[in-house]
Amino acid sequence: MAVTTREHALALDAADPLAPLRGRFQLPEGLVYLDGNSLGAAPRAAADRIARTVTHEWGDRLIRSWNEAGWFTAPARAAAALAPLLGADADEVVVADSTSVNLAKLLHVALSLRPGRTDVVMERGSFPTDLYVARGVLVLRGGRLRLVDGPDDLPGVLDEQVALVAVTEVDFRTGARWDVGALTAAAHTAGALALVDLCHSTGALDVDVHALDVDLAVGCGYKYLHGGPGAPAHAYVARRHHAALTAPMPAWFGHAEPFAMSTDFTPAPGVARLAGGTPPVLSLTGLLCGLESLDGVTPGQLQAKATALTAFFVALLDAHCPELTVVTPRDAARRGAHVSVAHPDAHGIVQALIARDVIGDFRDPDIARFGLAPTTTRFVDLVTAVQHLRAVLDAGEHDEARFTARSAVT
Amino acid sequence: MAVTTREHALALDAADPLAPLRGRFQLPEGLVYLDGNSLGAAPRAAADRIARTVTHEWGDRLIRSWNEAGWFTAPARAAAALAPLLGADADEVVVADSTSVNLAKLLHVALSLRPGRTDVVMERGSFPTDLYVARGVLVLRGGRLRLVDGPDDLPGVLDEQVALVAVTEVDFRTGARWDVGALTAAAHTAGALALVDLCHSTGALDVDVHALDVDLAVGCGYKYLHGGPGAPAHAYVARRHHAALTAPMPAWFGHAEPFAMSTDFTPAPGVARLAGGTPPVLSLTGLLCGLESLDGVTPGQLQAKATALTAFFVALLDAHCPELTVVTPRDAARRGAHVSVAHPDAHGIVQALIARDVIGDFRDPDIARFGLAPTTTRFVDLVTAVQHLRAVLDAGEHDEARFTARSAVT
Repeated sequence: MAVTTREHALALDAADPLAPLRGRFQLPEGLVYLDGNSLGAAPRAAADRIARTVTHEWGDRLIRSWNEAGWFTAPARAAAALAPLLGADADEVVVADSTSVNLAKLLHVALSLRPGRTDVVMERGSFPTDLYVARGVLVLRGGRLRLVDGPDDLPGVLDEQVALVAVTEVDFRTGARWDVGALTAAAHTAGALALVDLCHSTGALDVDVHALDVDLAVGCGYKYLHGGPGAPAHAYVARRHHAALTAPMPAWFGHAEPFAMSTDFTPAPGVARLAGGTPPVLSLTGLLCGLESLDGVTPGQLQAKATALTAFFVALLDAHCPELTVVTPRDAARRGAHVSVAHPDAHGIVQALIARDVIGDFRDPDIARFGLAPTTTRFVDLVTAVQHLRAVLDAGEHDEARFTARSAVT
Repeated sequence: MAVTTREHALALDAADPLAPLRGRFQLPEGLVYLDGNSLGAAPRAAADRIARTVTHEWGDRLIRSWNEAGWFTAPARAAAALAPLLGADADEVVVADSTSVNLAKLLHVALSLRPGRTDVVMERGSFPTDLYVARGVLVLRGGRLRLVDGPDDLPGVLDEQVALVAVTEVDFRTGARWDVGALTAAAHTAGALALVDLCHSTGALDVDVHALDVDLAVGCGYKYLHGGPGAPAHAYVARRHHAALTAPMPAWFGHAEPFAMSTDFTPAPGVARLAGGTPPVLSLTGLLCGLESLDGVTPGQLQAKATALTAFFVALLDAHCPELTVVTPRDAARRGAHVSVAHPDAHGIVQALIARDVIGDFRDPDIARFGLAPTTTRFVDLVTAVQHLRAVLDAGEHDEARFTARSAVT
């Protein structure tokens, strides 16, 4: 049978070792959800767990729950559950704050670890908030943010002023995946450190920070980690930097003994010193549910499924929607877990698909983006999505929908 | 009848205009909860609201809820609900991040608003994390943190190097309340700005940042605001500083158009530019519930109740527990909404009371602290608490309990 048929998709689903994972998540009947790279689906366990946190732990047990219910240890438990998905050890990971705040901390860490070097190199197409955060830190530190147009230009600008090369592994628009290992090696050769933003990687790809040899990493909890909207983010610091690691934004949850209430900051061991203020327990509980829903799944399994899903989706687009330009690399090693197409009416296309219960999202100026979370996406969903996409294009529905309000969070 | 009897307490409760407020909160039968200054009780509305956020908004509607369910506008709605409790205008308040992160931002703001001045003055007894945060910022800025032993020493150290005086209005140990208005005037006279930490004030006292004339303020969401464990915090910047306000930690939720995905940061109007990364929606929903549970209540009403509760509790302690030293000021204008006693066995006393379902908390080295949240505390609860306290002391229960694990979050 043809490789782009529904029958073929059903066969792929039947043979998919991760197919049972989908049962761990709540997904409305009839919805084709291809936006798990904006907000991952809710774990089925989340409703009861969070209800218990609100009603029993907060409502009935109140302050006692910091100990009794393990609120104090929740960030460390989240870090331990997350570490295998990063290829890290548990004590190299801290769960705290937002990605932006963690990125700010790690930029300070990098600049402190490379005294005498002042500048940071990033790619112009980085997720914009990463650029804002970097500029904010560099204003304080008196350094310069050097932007390059693409990854290939990165090694060319490395000199003795560069403290850090900071890259996003998977481009949030195109889905292109950088060779972070090669960029890290180039950074190291030039005496700089390497930081990777894994927001669009962890939980979907074969992330391995040890193999990549990166020094620092950040990531969010609400995409492929299924932690819920605005779930706490995380930061990774390679063990080789722990001895020299100072907390650039010290606060009491990063103190060795928070309740000694000492006027002096004594850092907690390792990367735990980068924790901040009191963690948002309800959102952190969501993250724990998300991480538990990934329990027993390896990055390699996620990668294999993501590769197969994206390949199948590209084949479907090629076969059925030739007027759309696939901007995601066709080399599986060079792409993440989402597939993007460019079209002048991309916004209208996405809106028309949403009206048909096929959820992707739009990114300025002309990108329609489809996230194929390996946890929840079935091959057959992709056939359904492309059928709707074909119907939208045939009926011109994107013309009518193009002016409706823009939505969605990356 | 004697002013320290149960009958008198019941009469006070019967005459209390805020008595109906307690019905808005979940409080276990039989528990005397005097730790609302660590973690406020759960609003009754929270369970259903948060369940809806998890199951319907996240679970069923997924990414669409950023618009549909108002997740995008939730921080602004929280700021608008909070502003009256601060005596501020809605556009002078931003809800985001933890208190620690907001304090770091405002310290940077203050130093930028007073170029040429490098130092910050704080009181040694400030909540310790405030000191950690300040030192972290000052290491980056090349300034000095000057600590004074008490509020009366503050004006004496003000010189042309001081950019900011940062005070906590209510001492987390003793409950002593500083005259922030006078300290602010002294700071202004010396050309410095004034910042106040309102964590132990807002939601319990007659806070009025306009009347105090402070430039900057921070506060948390999880104590007297009933927002839930680790609920998002907030920051206030007086309108007179908005024109010169730059975002020291720029991130996309503080951008004028987050979804334009511009490589350049264009700040949102006013203090909203201080927002950070993606907010933790579940915890933010808890904060919204907390703020709604305070709807219609004025800071003046909260203050009147707090004054009456603390006065009654001090009278009870004087009458029934003379061996305990009340360290909270007896002048109502000079105290917050908690009452603290010093005793060598304070830790054992608190543990023994917890075993009797009377929840206060312990603070190093010898403080037993009782938070009398005006939202949820009845006068009769205080009689019950002191009866148990008397029984603990008489039976020596604090000796047995003194070595059990320490708990609780300020």
